[in-house]
Formats: sequence, C-alpha cells, structure tokens
Amino acid sequence: MRSTMMDVPLTLPYVLERVQRYFPHGTVTSLLAAGMDAEGRPIPAKHRYTYADMARRAKQLANALVEAGVRPGDRVATIATNSYRHLEAYFAIPCVGAVLHTVNIRLHPEQIVYIVNHAGDKVLLIDNVLARLLPAILPHCPTLEKVVIMGPVPQQIPGALDYDTWISGQPDTFTYPEIDERAAAGMCYTSGTTGNPKGVVYSHRSIVLHNLGMTHPSGFMIAEGDTVLPVVPMFHVMAWGMPWAVPMVGANSVFASVFSDGPNLARLLAEEKVTVTAGVPTIWMGLLAEIERAREAGEPYDLSGLRELVVGGSAAPEALIRAFDRHGLRIVHAWGMTETSPFGTVSRLPAGVPHDSDEGYRVRAKQGRVPPLVDVRVIDDENRDVPSDGRSMGRLVIRGNWISGGYYGDETASRNSLVELRGPFGTEQWFDTGDIATIDEAGYISIQDRAKDLVKSGGEWISSVDLENALMGHPAVAQAAVIAVPHPKWDERPLAVVVLREGAQATPEDLRAHLEPRFARWWLPDAYEFVESIPIGSTGKFMKRELRDRFRDYRLESADSPA
Amino acid sequence: MRSTMMDVPLTLPYVLERVQRYFPHGTVTSLLAAGMDAEGRPIPAKHRYTYADMARRAKQLANALVEAGVRPGDRVATIATNSYRHLEAYFAIPCVGAVLHTVNIRLHPEQIVYIVNHAGDKVLLIDNVLARLLPAILPHCPTLEKVVIMGPVPQQIPGALDYDTWISGQPDTFTYPEIDERAAAGMCYTSGTTGNPKGVVYSHRSIVLHNLGMTHPSGFMIAEGDTVLPVVPMFHVMAWGMPWAVPMVGANSVFASVFSDGPNLARLLAEEKVTVTAGVPTIWMGLLAEIERAREAGEPYDLSGLRELVVGGSAAPEALIRAFDRHGLRIVHAWGMTETSPFGTVSRLPAGVPHDSDEGYRVRAKQGRVPPLVDVRVIDDENRDVPSDGRSMGRLVIRGNWISGGYYGDETASRNSLVELRGPFGTEQWFDTGDIATIDEAGYISIQDRAKDLVKSGGEWISSVDLENALMGHPAVAQAAVIAVPHPKWDERPLAVVVLREGAQATPEDLRAHLEPRFARWWLPDAYEFVESIPIGSTGKFMKRELRDRFRDYRLESADSPA
Repeated sequence: MRSTMMDVPLTLPYVLERVQRYFPHGTVTSLLAAGMDAEGRPIPAKHRYTYADMARRAKQLANALVEAGVRPGDRVATIATNSYRHLEAYFAIPCVGAVLHTVNIRLHPEQIVYIVNHAGDKVLLIDNVLARLLPAILPHCPTLEKVVIMGPVPQQIPGALDYDTWISGQPDTFTYPEIDERAAAGMCYTSGTTGNPKGVVYSHRSIVLHNLGMTHPSGFMIAEGDTVLPVVPMFHVMAWGMPWAVPMVGANSVFASVFSDGPNLARLLAEEKVTVTAGVPTIWMGLLAEIERAREAGEPYDLSGLRELVVGGSAAPEALIRAFDRHGLRIVHAWGMTETSPFGTVSRLPAGVPHDSDEGYRVRAKQGRVPPLVDVRVIDDENRDVPSDGRSMGRLVIRGNWISGGYYGDETASRNSLVELRGPFGTEQWFDTGDIATIDEAGYISIQDRAKDLVKSGGEWISSVDLENALMGHPAVAQAAVIAVPHPKWDERPLAVVVLREGAQATPEDLRAHLEPRFARWWLPDAYEFVESIPIGSTGKFMKRELRDRFRDYRLESADSPA
Repeated sequence: MRSTMMDVPLTLPYVLERVQRYFPHGTVTSLLAAGMDAEGRPIPAKHRYTYADMARRAKQLANALVEAGVRPGDRVATIATNSYRHLEAYFAIPCVGAVLHTVNIRLHPEQIVYIVNHAGDKVLLIDNVLARLLPAILPHCPTLEKVVIMGPVPQQIPGALDYDTWISGQPDTFTYPEIDERAAAGMCYTSGTTGNPKGVVYSHRSIVLHNLGMTHPSGFMIAEGDTVLPVVPMFHVMAWGMPWAVPMVGANSVFASVFSDGPNLARLLAEEKVTVTAGVPTIWMGLLAEIERAREAGEPYDLSGLRELVVGGSAAPEALIRAFDRHGLRIVHAWGMTETSPFGTVSRLPAGVPHDSDEGYRVRAKQGRVPPLVDVRVIDDENRDVPSDGRSMGRLVIRGNWISGGYYGDETASRNSLVELRGPFGTEQWFDTGDIATIDEAGYISIQDRAKDLVKSGGEWISSVDLENALMGHPAVAQAAVIAVPHPKWDERPLAVVVLREGAQATPEDLRAHLEPRFARWWLPDAYEFVESIPIGSTGKFMKRELRDRFRDYRLESADSPA
C-alpha cells in the first residue's frame, strides 16, 4: 500500500532555493590571497557578500556551465581552496545535474592527472593561487574541454577563462533539470596509502540527508545565528559537507582559503565571531600556540563566542583537549572518512556529565556515537560483534544513508570494502572502515588504530594511537608516531618515533617512565628514536608507511633478549 | 551517473533498532487510569519503563501481529490515548510492514465506523478506558478480525483479547520484512467540517524525515537529555510524530493518557522534569489557570526545567504568550495539519531578538518558518505569489517530503486539494492548506484565517482570528469567536461571539474600545453576542460552522444603516 505523501526528491536545488528564499541576508566571508609580501607569503584580504549574492552568482555559473555543454552526469573538477567562488561551484555544478569533483590539491600532480582522467572531468575550475599546477596537468588530461580560473591572475593563462568574466554575462535565474535523488552530485578520491586513489561518489540524497545529520543536535547542532568556519578543506571530503549544510540552516559561512595558520585563524575566528569551527588536530595545535602567545603578550583574542572546535581526521590527544579547556574553549571529537561523507560519529557528553570531569575527559577522548541514519558495529575476525565493554578491539564497520558501498569504476576495491553481516534485517552489506575500534555499552566508539598500523605482538593487538596520544601528553614531546618493527619472537614490537619540542629534552627512560603507569608492560615501546620531523600526508595525518619503510630494518635490542 | 552510496531505505525498523541499541536506558513514563474515584473520575497511576523494555514488547507485539495474520499493507487500527502500550503499537505495526491507523476517539461512533470500514482495518487495539465504544462499533465493522484491549478491564469483553496476555508468549526478537521506504506506515483521517473524513497516509520515508525535522534546531531541537510530554494526542495527527521522533534521538517520553487537565499536567511536568511539551491552546489555558492557582496558594510548581511549551492546532493569543512569560515559561508557536505530518512551520526568534521585546512578541505571534525539506507559498486568486510584506493575505500552499499530495481512496478530494504552480523546478503540485496567511520578507507566515472562516466584507478580507486574539486579550474575555453574518450592502460583516470570564463584565462598547486602536475601522465587529460557551470540536478548535448555523439569521443593526 502506498502513502499519499508527495514524491519530492531530496536534491541540492531545493537546498539552494531554500537558502536564497529564507536566508538572503546570511553572509559568506572569505579570506583570499591578494598578492604576495616581500617574503613570498600570500597577503590576506577579506571578501564578504550575502547568500542572496551567492545564489545569484551560482545560478549565473549554472547557466555558464550549461552553455559550455555540461550535461547531467558530466564531471566538473575543482582544484581550489575554501572561498565564496568555490561555494558557488558547490551549488551550481550539482544543480545543473553534473558532478562536482573536488580534487585534493595536496596530491602529487601525477595523482591529480590520474584522477582527472579516471573521473573523465570535462571542465576544470581552479583557484588563481593554484594555477601554477596547470602546466603539469593540462597536457595529460585530454577530457578537459575548458579551464576556468577563479580569481585574478597577474597575466592571462593561454586557453584559460577568468571565472568572474565567464559568468558575468549570464542570467541570474535558472530552471533546474529533473534530477533523480540517487544521481551523483559530488565525488572525491581517497588518497589511499597503496594503489591508485579510489573515487567515492555522493548522491543528492546522501548529501541532503548528511546536511540534516550534520546540523542536527545529534551532530553539530548548527542553526541560524551560528557562524561556521570549516578549516577542513573544500578539496577534501567536501569540507565535511559544511558548504551545503551551513547555508541550508541559515548560519553564516566563513572561509580561510590558504590562511590556516594560527595567527590568521585566530584573528578570523575573533573578528567574525565564529561559533563553530572544524579542523584536524594539527590545525588546532597551531591555533593553540597562537592563542597562548597572544595571551602571554597581553593581547588575547576574544573568542568568547566560539562554542565548539570540532576535531576530526585524526584523534585529538587528551593533552590538546585539556589545553583548550584552560582557555575556555571546547574541543569536540568527531570521526569519519571520505567514504562516510564524512560524518560517522561525534562525542557529545551524556546529560549531566561535566566536560571537565574525569568521566567527561574519558568520553571526550572517544570518537563518540552515530547520528540517526547511521549505524556501526565492531566485529572480530569471524564477523561476530565484540563485547560492548569499551575494551575489546575489533574492526569498525558502518552502514547508513550517506555511507559508500563501493568505489567509482573499481569493482575489486568495491567488493573488498564490504562485509556481509546478519542482523534483524537479514543479511546486509557493511562498509569496512579499516579502523580498529572499541565500543562501550552506550555505543561510544574509540578508534584504536588503522588496521594496518596496529602492532601485532605475540598474537595480541597494541594500539599505536593510544601510545602516541600518551607520548604527546609528555611536556617535552611535540610529535610522536608509534610503528611496528619486526621481531623474531613476537612477530612485531612497537617503536616510538619522537620529535621533541624546541629546546626540550627527554631520554627514552623518561618517556618509558611517563608511559608505565598508563599501559600494560607488554604494550610499552621497545625503543625510542628521536627525529627532526615526522612526515605528514596530504590529509594532515602521519605518513606511517614512510616511517615503516625507513625503519624496516630497525634492529631492536630486545630482538636478542626478548622482554 | 549513479553514486556509490549504499541504498538504505528510510524506514521505521531502523529507528526502532537505533532506540533499542543506543538508548536502552531512556525512559517512558505514562499516567494511566487506575480505576475511578467516588465521582466517577479516573484515578491516575504512574507506569515507568525503559526503551529497552519498550523495544522488547514492541517486538513481541510484532510477532503477535504476524501470528494473527497481519501482512504488509494490512491496516491495524488503534483507538487509544497516549501511553506506553500505544507507543509499542506505533513501532510494532509499521515494523511488520502494516499500516498504523490511529482513530480519533472524539469522533462520533458513526464516523469511527465509517473510517474503520474505509480503511479496511483488520485488527483493532483499543484502550481499556475506551472499550465502552466497542458495542457501537464492532457490529458495523466486518473487516475487523481481531480486537485487543490495551490495559485491564473489570470484566472480560466477549471476543476481545487482553493485550498483555496476547503478546506475553511471543519472542522479543523480530526479523523485519523488506519494506519500501515509500510504503504506507501510518494513516490518520481528518475530520473535515463537511463531507466524510478523508484519510492521509504517511510513508516510512515521510515519517523518518519528519522525525529529523521535528528534532532539528530548525524544528523543536530535541536531543538526548530532553524529556518530552506530547499532550497532543496519539489518536490525532500521530501526536505530531513525537512518539517516533523523541525516542529516535534518545530523549525520554512522558504520556498523560486522559489526564490533560491543568492540575494533572502541572504535576506531571514538574515531577518528570519535562523540558519540552506540546499541545493546543486550550490545554495551556488550563495549565496556566492551575499554575496561577498554585502560586497564589503559596505552593508553586517547580517548572524550571521546562524549556518550551509548543502550541499548535490553533493560534495562541498573544495574551496567553505573555501570561506564560510572566511565569518564566516560553510558549512557541508552530503550525501544521494532518496533511503536513504535521510539522509545517515553527516561530523561532531570529538571532538577537529578545523574546519579550516588542519585536519578539510580534514574531512569536506568527506561525513562523518552514524547516528544511518543506516550502510554502502564499498565493492570490490567480495563483501568483502575494507580496512578502507581512500584510498581503493569500492562500497558503505547501510542498515537501512529508506533505500529503492527496487522500486515501478519494480521487476527487485529492485533485481538489492540489494547486499547480510554476517555479524554478518547472510546474509542481502544491497542497492547498485552506488557510489564509500573510508572509513577511523573512519568510515568517501568519495564519489569518481558515479560507472558509474569513469575513468577506465589501470585497476585502477580514481575519476572524486576528479579531479573536485581540478580544481574548481583554481581561474580561475568556473566549471569543468571530464569524461572518450576511449583510445586504457588504455581503458579510463580522459578529463577535464572546464568553466572559466568571464574574467579569464587559459591554459591547468596552470591547469595541479595546479593539479600536488595533484595527482599521471597517474591521471592527458590527455586533457582540455574549454566550455561555462556544462549541469546541474534536481537535480543540472552535466549531465555527455550528456558530454560523446558530447565527445564520442574525440581523445586524448596521444592515439597516450601514457603517
């Protein structure tokens, strides 16, 4: 029996119409690079307009795309930082029925060429500050019919159009094509550590539902009156979907382009009275340093309106959470990945638990719980649920309306990413995140490690992430990565690779003494290597594969006399 | 091009699984009738259990329904007040793929018979306190195969089963059938003022999306930690969808069954530390009287945790809003109808507007704005949008994912309920609400009247609702209804029908003087009739049709000497 409900599709054009109609006065503020200073660093300049302006220009862009021959299903690439022009593209491209393909600017040009060709992109919109990448890309990307540069460039680039000029003659109204809610709206390639990047394709339906989840009280609770600065980039996992979700509820948007350093961020957060911001831990480390510098210099920033700093991408060490608490600023843990749109979990405190209590810190260190429309399970090698005791580790699998069930044009990878599990709905496919996690009785997950980064010692698992977070809580330690090195008796044992803070000193014995009260004896690293720096990848995470390569032949003393 | 997203349906079984898994300790508190006192009034007794209990019993009920031969698409009726057993039915019936048909207990038995037959209900679950209705219904409802009584009865009723006994032997796990998200999950008949009741059928998809909208910051912002008491009945418009939405986010549920009087509600709100409650204006009038009585008696209720009293069904007079403000309690306006699931709009204040400022009261008197996934337009007789000036009146039409596009098995009524409008999506069908409204520049609608209740004077419209609200702001007035009476020159003129407060006095001249500063002269009622009471219908609204019948031949003095 059918319902009498209207059959309205869940598509982005309805979001754009909502923004234009109900929130015309909402603002979009962008820091943009306006030339370079004497040392070759970009100089920030502020641009501000309203959602009414954004919608009109997005519709001009939509008309320009159609005139350029872009048809439903065509892919349009962006190589761009966070800015109002990129926001226009976020709306215009899906609204003509095409697919917004955001290219990670931190990839090697060879990888960029690979994914532009794999996606078969027809048009490329590229930031002026990134136009230097073009010579390495264009000759190898035959599907690209048109290149448009967002923002002024010192001199014209042959064969490339200027974005503002291109859209300026177009009408600012647009009649949308009919769009199936399950049609592709956006795509993003994951830069896996092995093999070629794999494409995840979001649908209109998944994005609209994700918008609702992100802004829901079970998510980040964003409403009109909020001002949101996603430091997370629009070129990676769609800036957590915030470019769509934030305007949908009428909150203001703030973008920082290339200015994600502590001083620029701190100033922007204060000036724009940002209420919610989102980024990876390294961003917040930079911000923290600047906040502490400014306070010591007697010129503190007024960040009293900042309600939450959401952290994702990697786990935030408890030390970082506590450091922000001392400044009256609240770090909130979230977890997700490209394949989860990315909102998977967020760690909101249960009612009545103070954020700075022991229980509060215990919960806040976790990645949290799923919102409605998403579910997780933690399973063992036989695909059975591990006990919900907050201790038993297992593979984290996830299922839901904005979770990927495969990869674009890659059947093998798609098949390998799924696990078939039985439950109250019969047999269902779940996405295997590649993360190792625990889950507690209340459903809070705690990511222990990437499956491939686990240290497997004597048949037992040791979480490299737990050890790293504890090490980074030592006052002398700036960064720490724990990797597995081969061991004749235990198969693998942990090695800690440590970067000390400038001017600070610590011995392996100091660090061992710091860890000892916190872990079982057999978890403690067998050795400590002090290095100048730890390689960090395009998404802000430690490149453990490089470390493992570097220390592949590392000879543990314990290898001769096992612990 | 398709996305790589999983194709997970939006269905209620996923909501039930979420509740059971993540919120097992959430509580359901029900006031139930435990016998009668000496004067024949029901005595309240409190029942409390957890969502874990609820889910287990819902699954027992699901198994019992399947064993009774209920198949996907079959209709199962409930004639019941708000309680935990009814909540179990809310989940179990859709979760076996059947359709929950909630019957309005305030309908005349003949109408109940009509809709049970029209829906073709197979099983009936009926409250013990309502079992007296059975003799008038059962003989005329041949499709009913089974009758189950929820709650104990003094003596067994022939042919009827006891609910608790019926489900007790069943397993408390259940494997769900495959359910299309567009399949029917619930149905509710509107008791129109003319013709037979018309059925609105909700889908799993519309209910799940409505759940998200209700609990969203653009809606009623309900989260874990909240405790919600929907006074709005589960037998009418699905208690605003709260029985599903509240558990989905982990908030606690409180139900009051037949105890919607001021003293019982006030006690329940205080004892259960309710944070959000929802009801029609007459309910809040009763609550206000009790709160004021208790305060004057020096035994005030502690309602400090009560964040919002949502009012819908009819407009709340500004006087009522201000009266609650004086007790530190916040009335929030919402608007909707059976055909809109019912969440259509809610009047949240724009950022920075104090609730007790002039601007605040102006906004709070409106019905507010649409949440995501819903849109409204206000149109004139040529189907053109009226100006968004907050003054121009027009027909309110609505469209969205939880808006009905017709009526069950009634093609004529379906066709008549829709209007075809052009817009950026081409031509679309909108539901004509039958309400007359204004819309302002920020998109806030203000319901002026039911189209059929408007007073059409000399070709211009006069809003009966505005006049009524102003009249009810007069200290001597308890209730006021304004209706059109025939007039030889102006076609219609307003007549005010007034109930004075006990012991209070007012003359027509007093009331006219009260209205004069607020309205154009030609809006003022031509006459005032003082009556003992105004008939109120099954949904708590004034029965204006009865008033119009009563005053059909009313002879206005002005008919002889037009104003």
